[in-house]
Amino acid sequence: MIYLNNAATTLQKPPCVIQAVVEAMIGQGSCGRGSHASELTAARTVFHTREALARFFAFPHPERVVFTANATQALNTALWGLLKPGDHVIATDWDHNSVLRPLHALAQTTGVKVDCLPADRQGRLEYDQLDGLLRPNTRLLVGTHASNLTGNLLDVERMAAFAKQHGLVFLLDAAQTAGSTPIAMEEMGVHLLAFTGHKGLMGPQGTGGLCVAPGVELRSLLSGGTGVRSFEEDQPQEYPEHLEAGTLNGHGLAGLGAAVDFILETGVETIHAHERALTERFVQGLWDIPGVTVYGDFSGDRAPVVALNLEGWDPAAAADELSQGYDIAVRPGIHCAPRMHRCLGTQDTGCLRFSFGWYTTQEDIDAALAALKEMAQ
Amino acid sequence: MIYLNNAATTLQKPPCVIQAVVEAMIGQGSCGRGSHASELTAARTVFHTREALARFFAFPHPERVVFTANATQALNTALWGLLKPGDHVIATDWDHNSVLRPLHALAQTTGVKVDCLPADRQGRLEYDQLDGLLRPNTRLLVGTHASNLTGNLLDVERMAAFAKQHGLVFLLDAAQTAGSTPIAMEEMGVHLLAFTGHKGLMGPQGTGGLCVAPGVELRSLLSGGTGVRSFEEDQPQEYPEHLEAGTLNGHGLAGLGAAVDFILETGVETIHAHERALTERFVQGLWDIPGVTVYGDFSGDRAPVVALNLEGWDPAAAADELSQGYDIAVRPGIHCAPRMHRCLGTQDTGCLRFSFGWYTTQEDIDAALAALKEMAQ
Repeated sequence: MIYLNNAATTLQKPPCVIQAVVEAMIGQGSCGRGSHASELTAARTVFHTREALARFFAFPHPERVVFTANATQALNTALWGLLKPGDHVIATDWDHNSVLRPLHALAQTTGVKVDCLPADRQGRLEYDQLDGLLRPNTRLLVGTHASNLTGNLLDVERMAAFAKQHGLVFLLDAAQTAGSTPIAMEEMGVHLLAFTGHKGLMGPQGTGGLCVAPGVELRSLLSGGTGVRSFEEDQPQEYPEHLEAGTLNGHGLAGLGAAVDFILETGVETIHAHERALTERFVQGLWDIPGVTVYGDFSGDRAPVVALNLEGWDPAAAADELSQGYDIAVRPGIHCAPRMHRCLGTQDTGCLRFSFGWYTTQEDIDAALAALKEMAQ
Repeated sequence: MIYLNNAATTLQKPPCVIQAVVEAMIGQGSCGRGSHASELTAARTVFHTREALARFFAFPHPERVVFTANATQALNTALWGLLKPGDHVIATDWDHNSVLRPLHALAQTTGVKVDCLPADRQGRLEYDQLDGLLRPNTRLLVGTHASNLTGNLLDVERMAAFAKQHGLVFLLDAAQTAGSTPIAMEEMGVHLLAFTGHKGLMGPQGTGGLCVAPGVELRSLLSGGTGVRSFEEDQPQEYPEHLEAGTLNGHGLAGLGAAVDFILETGVETIHAHERALTERFVQGLWDIPGVTVYGDFSGDRAPVVALNLEGWDPAAAADELSQGYDIAVRPGIHCAPRMHRCLGTQDTGCLRFSFGWYTTQEDIDAALAALKEMAQ
């Protein structure tokens, strides 16, 4: 199989990740629920994962790396935890339904107001319009670090400077970048960083989290058992318990810790360069194929995601042909990015998304290009 | 190691569970995010798990078995999804912080009113008081199927009859019973069933869910990408997407499916009988040990959980001694059950909890009894 759907999940995991999950499933109890070797192993493993992620994101507060089931839960935790009735939010046309739907729900139920920084027909965000969107009650700026459709990277520096200038909280959705693009949270001026464990970080599904900068106050979205302060009627204020309720996914987090260790050893720059080179090879190759429309901006650095359409092919039919005729996995459709499809003019048909990862090879890229070339004829 | 902390998590999993997780981590993509073999395998695996659980709980609506990260998230989903300002809830003194804390948060933020059915000094719920707690605006009756402290089983029949008589929704927290006590959801008159995957069901951590009977309307607690209906601003109304947002824990759910298959094959009655026999052996053995106080009611059927104190021993010190002197894992403390500890009069010191599982042996029980006997001298 040629797996080019890494923006949905990385199919192949480093062997150490699977090994760590297996070991956890054999000998690891529940973190914080007892003090025998089984529970202490769980607590140490989970804390190691917090520390590894804190180091990886250059965020010196491991106890404020809070674990969730996925990036979506992390984003819901941030948005519902921060926003109050009367608040105004600036999001972007790039944002995924994991941001847009919670904001819509907040708007419906609490009257939070939302504006989106627009993108043009090429999918470029119109940063000049930020000032015009600002209101006296703007409290939050949220943006995805890379469009999950075009792969274009957010101008984090510009967004962070705007947030700083106007005293806004800046929430970065790193679902598409964590593990494959360097992120230094504090240096980049990010207050809330949402990530998933099973994409670029190459960890197990069921893992993800939110880094919460000191000074940012969030209400608990979920509450429940914490194994500490059990007589307090409220969820404890201390981190990470404040935002974690119930038994953690210790098995998955053991794998995530091993995955982050693997990336720290390999070097995120190395991974990024590998994926960047593959993406360039793919995009270069597309020029030779008649009837291909590629979406997005190809002028700067990017995540390894390429969206396109092939003349005469419905994207779903093209994905089926790639799957059945060539054993190539890609993802057609809307990719949970409705506003971006409207910007690109692809809202009626969607498009075909190719996305690469650490385990993607040049041969995979060439095979995909050869398949597209055949299909174009 | 002698692991007697199964009420926190079952340490040992059937080998097929680990095997299923490994296979999923090697070949399984993201459920609902593409249509190649990798994604179809994920979709089939996850749907198999829904079907196996639906069958296991005698609940003929697999699409309404909604997956969450743990029982706590399932309970939060049920409580926040159902209750509206002005509603009144009857909970019980048995309930875990996974029920009590969300109800407290709902009371604080939306004015929901909560009363708890009291338990007596022996931990027996005073069902006769149900009528007196009823109000015209009572909407929900919630109870844990087994106290996570005494192991006593809820009188589900009586609770369900009361709920039916007064038109209440009945939410059963099966965190301590799913997998080890037979549950027939519809027959038992349960409208919402919350369960965790990593305790009695012997699946991976990071799994759990909520079964939602048709006709029970819940708002979405989390919203985000669903892979379907991406242009809808609201979370889709259809199940399971209505209550599932973002990438599922497909790896963990593969393991959970294998675990449920294992239990269906083994027979939950067989498991229950095994654990019941171990519990009886343990309780019988305790009579011979001077200075032991056992909490709870021993007149009926029960979950395999025994809470006790040993004269002259602080529970935390006793747990340490069992751990270091005998390699026995138990859990001391408050067990996230503050109201129950107050009922039993153990709120100042907590107690020592022994809990058994499918892989616990008679030898484990006898070793624990021998250790307690030595410590009592």
